[in-house]
Amino acid sequence: MIGIFDSGIGGLTVVKAFRELVAEYSLLYFGDTARMPYGTKSSETLLRYARQNTEWLLAHGAQMIVVACNSASAAATVQLRKAFPDVPFFGVVTPAVEAAIAATKNGRIGLVGTRATVASGMYESYAEKLSGGKAKVVSVACPLLVPLVEEGWLDSGETKRIIRKYVHPLRAKGVDTLVLGCTHYPLLKSLFQQKIGNGVALVDSAEAQAASVAHFLNNHPEWEKKLSKKKKDAFYVSDLTPQFQKTALRLLGESVTLHKVDFGK
Amino acid sequence: MIGIFDSGIGGLTVVKAFRELVAEYSLLYFGDTARMPYGTKSSETLLRYARQNTEWLLAHGAQMIVVACNSASAAATVQLRKAFPDVPFFGVVTPAVEAAIAATKNGRIGLVGTRATVASGMYESYAEKLSGGKAKVVSVACPLLVPLVEEGWLDSGETKRIIRKYVHPLRAKGVDTLVLGCTHYPLLKSLFQQKIGNGVALVDSAEAQAASVAHFLNNHPEWEKKLSKKKKDAFYVSDLTPQFQKTALRLLGESVTLHKVDFGK
Repeated sequence: MIGIFDSGIGGLTVVKAFRELVAEYSLLYFGDTARMPYGTKSSETLLRYARQNTEWLLAHGAQMIVVACNSASAAATVQLRKAFPDVPFFGVVTPAVEAAIAATKNGRIGLVGTRATVASGMYESYAEKLSGGKAKVVSVACPLLVPLVEEGWLDSGETKRIIRKYVHPLRAKGVDTLVLGCTHYPLLKSLFQQKIGNGVALVDSAEAQAASVAHFLNNHPEWEKKLSKKKKDAFYVSDLTPQFQKTALRLLGESVTLHKVDFGK
Repeated sequence: MIGIFDSGIGGLTVVKAFRELVAEYSLLYFGDTARMPYGTKSSETLLRYARQNTEWLLAHGAQMIVVACNSASAAATVQLRKAFPDVPFFGVVTPAVEAAIAATKNGRIGLVGTRATVASGMYESYAEKLSGGKAKVVSVACPLLVPLVEEGWLDSGETKRIIRKYVHPLRAKGVDTLVLGCTHYPLLKSLFQQKIGNGVALVDSAEAQAASVAHFLNNHPEWEKKLSKKKKDAFYVSDLTPQFQKTALRLLGESVTLHKVDFGK
C-alpha cells in the first residue's frame, strides 16, 4: 500500500489529488490528530513525530511513504530517507518547487505556509538549487489559516481580511507565482487568487506532490506491480472528535470513516 | 513545590495571578508545547496527557498539582484525584463557577472557552449543582482565539470582529456574567468587556484558580509548612521554538527562561 501521513486531517487534500491521478492504488492514511498541528512546532520534535508515524505505517503494511504535511516534509524527509534506506519517501517541497519554477516567468516565487515550513528555509534553498540561482522565494508564515479552515470559515469576511494581510508583502515584491505550501490551503485557493491578483499563477503543493508520485509509478514498473490495486483505502488517526470528522468531510469532499488508534505512550 | 501544568504556555497567566496572591511559594511549571493545543482534542486523549504531565511534575518535586488548562481540568481533574489520592489537585472549573455564581444577579452566566471545555459540559453541571439549580450557563466555543493570542493579534480589527461574533449569542441570552474559561483569554479581557458590554461582570478563571489555591494554603497550615518558600520558579516545556518564547513574554508580562525536556517517546 501507499502510506501517507499528516499532522492531522489536512493531508486528505493530498488524498483527494491522489484519487484523480493514481486512483487505482490502495492508500493507508495516518493523521496525528492527537499532536496536531505540526506547523507551530520545532524541527526536532517534527522529526521525532515523522519517524514514529513512518514506523506505524510500515508496521501496518505501507511500502512507500508520502509525507503530506509540508511542515513535516521540510523538517524530516531528508533524515527519513537516511533512516529507512529501502523505503521510497515522497516529500512535498521538491515537487512544489519544481512546479513553481516551471510556472514563474520573472523568477519571483511567493510561498505561504506554516511557521515551521517557512522557518525551515527549504523552499528558498531548493528553489535556488533547482533553478540554478534564477528563482528566488519570498515567504510568509500564515499561522491563522489552519485554524480558520478547521473551523470552516472558508468564506468569512475575517478570513478574507486575514489573507489580504498575509499576501500584501508578496504583492509588494511582485511575485508572479504563489505556492500554497500547506495541506489546508487548497480550500482557500479562490480567496488567495482573489487577494493576490489573477495574474499570479497558483501552485497547489498537494497536486504537485500527487503528480510526483504518479510520475514515479509510471517510471518504476517494479513498484507499480508491488502495490495493491484492490483500491481499499483506510484512514487512521491518533485522536478522534466530532470536529475532526466534520473537517475530514470538508477537506476530502466526501464522507470518510476515521479509525482511532492508540498511539504514543 | 507547587506543580502546575498546562497544554502550553497559556498557563503563565495563572502563574501571573499566583505571583499576586501566593507569591512566596516556588512553582514548578510544565507546558506540553509538543502536543498543544489541548482545546481541540478528545477527553480521552486529554486524560492521558494530564496523567503523564502529573507524573512528570511529581517525579520532579511537585507536592500538589494545579491544572491550569481549562480543557484538561474539565476532562481530567476528577479522575486525577482518584488516580493520585495523596496529592491535592486544583482544577479551574469549580473556582471559576463559584466566582461566577457570586457575581451573577440574574442567574444567567456566559462561558467562553475551547471546544473541549465547552463539550465537557462541566461548567453547566457544576453551576447547576453549586447554585442549587438557580444559575444556568450558556456556553460558546471560541476556537480561533488561542491562535490569535499566540500570534499576538491582541488588538487587531480581525480579533475584535471575531470576538463580537462569538459573544453575540451570549448578549442575546442576556447573561450578566461572563467566565473567561481559557488561560489565553485574560489578554483579551478588555476586548471581551467592550464587545459584551460594560454591565456584564467578567470572571477570569486564572484569577479564580489562584485565589482557590491561596484559600487552601491559608486554611491548611500543614501544607503551607511543607512547601518551599525559597521562591525559585522553574519552567519546563516539551517543545521550544522562538515563537513560544515570545508568547511566554506576552502572557506573563515578563521574560522567563523556558527549559526543554524530552517528553513522550
